[in-house]
Amino acid sequence: MRRGTLYGIGVGPGDPDLITVKGARVLATCPHVFAPKSKEDSQSLALRIARPHIPSEARIHELLFPMTSDKDELEERWGTAAKEILDVLDAGHNACFLTLGDVFLYSTYTYLLRMLRRLQPAVNVVTIPGITAFSAAAAAAECPLGEGKESVTIVPTADDLNEVTRAVHNGDAVVLMKIGKRLDRVLEVLESEVAIDRSVFVSKVGLKDEAVVRDLRLLRSPDADRGYLSVILVRGKKEVHS
Amino acid sequence: MRRGTLYGIGVGPGDPDLITVKGARVLATCPHVFAPKSKEDSQSLALRIARPHIPSEARIHELLFPMTSDKDELEERWGTAAKEILDVLDAGHNACFLTLGDVFLYSTYTYLLRMLRRLQPAVNVVTIPGITAFSAAAAAAECPLGEGKESVTIVPTADDLNEVTRAVHNGDAVVLMKIGKRLDRVLEVLESEVAIDRSVFVSKVGLKDEAVVRDLRLLRSPDADRGYLSVILVRGKKEVHS
Repeated sequence: MRRGTLYGIGVGPGDPDLITVKGARVLATCPHVFAPKSKEDSQSLALRIARPHIPSEARIHELLFPMTSDKDELEERWGTAAKEILDVLDAGHNACFLTLGDVFLYSTYTYLLRMLRRLQPAVNVVTIPGITAFSAAAAAAECPLGEGKESVTIVPTADDLNEVTRAVHNGDAVVLMKIGKRLDRVLEVLESEVAIDRSVFVSKVGLKDEAVVRDLRLLRSPDADRGYLSVILVRGKKEVHS
Repeated sequence: MRRGTLYGIGVGPGDPDLITVKGARVLATCPHVFAPKSKEDSQSLALRIARPHIPSEARIHELLFPMTSDKDELEERWGTAAKEILDVLDAGHNACFLTLGDVFLYSTYTYLLRMLRRLQPAVNVVTIPGITAFSAAAAAAECPLGEGKESVTIVPTADDLNEVTRAVHNGDAVVLMKIGKRLDRVLEVLESEVAIDRSVFVSKVGLKDEAVVRDLRLLRSPDADRGYLSVILVRGKKEVHS
């Protein structure tokens, strides 16, 4: 029997219509759909986004990848997930693996695919890219990223804000992701680097209640809606005009 | 009469099916399609990519933006283009403006929209993001970009390679775009920064004859197909395993 193909699909940031035509077409005929989630009792966000493109007869498999930095636990989760997917492929069926945003930019798919290739090097994989959260945020805020010869640095915010400071200090465009509870400290960095006026905050990117905040000082208010799934876009120093 | 809406659409890197479902849906009913091109006698690449989604009755307007760094000439071109689009909108029709890859990442759309808002601040605009060339290249090469807390810097290669050197030297992931004739010098930088073994070269991204070269030393050969529309993905130093 011919082994099935795994389609890794970036479903984009939130709006079901921001998946690619190719991704939607593959989903329409794929009998097995795997989707990651971070909590046992919640539904996979990637699955919720892709749902309108999945036929009712498809079999859905939600895979739990808890938010943890415990490498052994993660390795075990990825191993279990990879084996579950291989079982489907070995039975001759195609399968999709959904991932929020793009496939290879800070994505679980990276680890899963590595594990899959370790277990079965010859596995057939087709990877379909997706719209990144920052592209969608830039579109919503009408905020150009990267003009002329300036560079754009994407920084996943860590507890240690050194990398955020370094990137912003450089003066080129910066995308800050995974801000979460560090927002107040990030705002302080933007103030002290005189970058707050070339920054824009977008929360719930790609979702119905997506919100753009152009004066980031307003986020300091205790009543401010700081949202979630948020990114901050910092325009380059040289290119801020008009 | 109600003024029309301008839809700015990122058509993705090359494969017509890498446009979003939203972009394809808007194109299917839009009576006017504007597309940039860089040479008088060539067809717009963005138009060629979007063509399967454009109905035959749509009116196509190709806009010439020559490759020039003459700011006055560019300003004049953007002004003429913006006026042509405004004429259509003022007549009550909707229009699309196509852009290769994503809408706000190194794109003509940025300048055009700025000019449009200068001439008519109240113009209705809906911007639909697109798949970036580097996302498509990463998918084709199965090359993760951004793992854990590493940053990703996108660098449009300039004649002066200082920014390329700086980004690669930093050790996080790097995307090198607009390489063109600077390829030999870029390869030298990657060699001297001991980064050539964590780099992958993808040419004609998203097109049928897309090619992935994993050993960049092969590009040094005079017979090597160096392609065009190429990007180099440099994986982060810390995250290269498997």
